[in-house]
Amino acid sequence: MQGFFITLEGTEGAGKTTVVPYIKDFIESKGMICECVREPGGTAIAEQIRAILKTPCSEKMDNVTELLLMYAARCQLVNSYIKPKLAQGVCIVCDRHDLSTIAYQGGGRGLSMALIESIRNIALGDFKPDLTLLMDIEPAAGMQRARSRGETDRFELEELSFFTRVRESYLEAAKTRSEVEVIDSSKDREQVRAAVTDIMEKFFNDKTIAMA
Amino acid sequence: MQGFFITLEGTEGAGKTTVVPYIKDFIESKGMICECVREPGGTAIAEQIRAILKTPCSEKMDNVTELLLMYAARCQLVNSYIKPKLAQGVCIVCDRHDLSTIAYQGGGRGLSMALIESIRNIALGDFKPDLTLLMDIEPAAGMQRARSRGETDRFELEELSFFTRVRESYLEAAKTRSEVEVIDSSKDREQVRAAVTDIMEKFFNDKTIAMA
Repeated sequence: MQGFFITLEGTEGAGKTTVVPYIKDFIESKGMICECVREPGGTAIAEQIRAILKTPCSEKMDNVTELLLMYAARCQLVNSYIKPKLAQGVCIVCDRHDLSTIAYQGGGRGLSMALIESIRNIALGDFKPDLTLLMDIEPAAGMQRARSRGETDRFELEELSFFTRVRESYLEAAKTRSEVEVIDSSKDREQVRAAVTDIMEKFFNDKTIAMA
Repeated sequence: MQGFFITLEGTEGAGKTTVVPYIKDFIESKGMICECVREPGGTAIAEQIRAILKTPCSEKMDNVTELLLMYAARCQLVNSYIKPKLAQGVCIVCDRHDLSTIAYQGGGRGLSMALIESIRNIALGDFKPDLTLLMDIEPAAGMQRARSRGETDRFELEELSFFTRVRESYLEAAKTRSEVEVIDSSKDREQVRAAVTDIMEKFFNDKTIAMA
C-alpha cells in the first residue's frame, strides 16, 4: 500500500511546526510509518538550494530566479525522496509544498498563476498531496510569533502587505482544491490539535472506504 | 548605443577560455567597453547556484532539477547584470549560455527540446545572443585537454559518449541559428585566433551597415 502525502501550509508564525507531531502521532496510531520533511530542502542538494533562498543577500533576487529555485528544490525532493518513500508505504508530512509557491511567489511576488503552473507541470507532472492542512492566521499576529523566535530569513523580512497577499492567495487556492482543509490557528493549542485530529480521522476514514 | 552580447560555447577542453581575451581585445580595438562573465555564475547568487551544479555530490541530481538550476542562474545573471550592462553600451562576452543547456541537458541528459524551450521562455523571454562562437573539437581530444588541467567537476566526470551527444547537439543547433559560428578548435592557436578575428570583423561590419 502506497503511503499518504500530507502537506502543511500557512504564513509565518501560523503554527505549522507545532502541528507536525500531532499528524505524525495520528498516523503512527493507525499503524503506519511517518517521516517528516520541510521545503525548500529535505535532501543534501535541496538544502543547499534552501540556503540560497533563505539567506538575506545584498543582491536582489529576481522573482523568476526565486520561482525556478523553489521548483528545483521541490523537484529534487519529490523525485529522490518523497516518491520512493510513498512507494514503500511510508507516509510523508511535508512542512510547505506547492501551495506555498502559489501563495508566496504568486500572491506575494505577483508572478502569474499560468507561469507558475507551467513550471509546476515540468517539475512535478501530476504529483500532488493527498491532504493539505492550511494553518490560517492574521498575518500581523503570525509575524509577531515568528519574529519573537529570533533571526529573520529573507522572506520574513518582507512587509505586512506581502503576507496579507500571501494569506489571500492561500485562502483563494483553498476554495478550488478539495484536498485543502483550513484550520483557524488563532485558537489555542488544544483546539488546534482537536481540529487536526478531526481532519485526520475523516481523511483516514475516507481513504479506508475508498480502498475497501 | 546598446552593447553586443557575445557567447562562447563548446564541450570541455574546446578552448573557450583561450578565446575570451581575443574577443575582448577586438571589441576594445573598436572603441567599445567589454566585460567578460561565465555561466553558470557571474553574480553572487548565480555563483552559489554554480557551486551546487558543479560540485560532485553523493546524491544523484535529478535532470529536471539540473535544468531548473541552470535557468535560475541564467535568469539572475541576465536580469541583474547582462541586460543593465548592455543598456549602458557595454559589450558582454559570456563563457557558456543558452546553447550549453540545449547541448548538455538536451543532448547529453536527453531532456526534450520542447521542455527546455518552455523553461527558457519563462526565464529569458526573447532575449538571445547577438553572436555565438561555437568552439568545436573531438570530445576525446577535448577531454584530454580538460583533465590535464586538474580537478574534474560534476560534468567533467561524465563518459565520452555523453560529450559525443553534447557535441552532436551543438552542431545540430548551429545549423538552424544564424547567430552561431562554428570554429574548428583542433587547429593551432594562431589559426584559431585568425578565425575568431575574421568572425568578429564580419560581425562588426554587418552591425555597422545595419546601423548606418
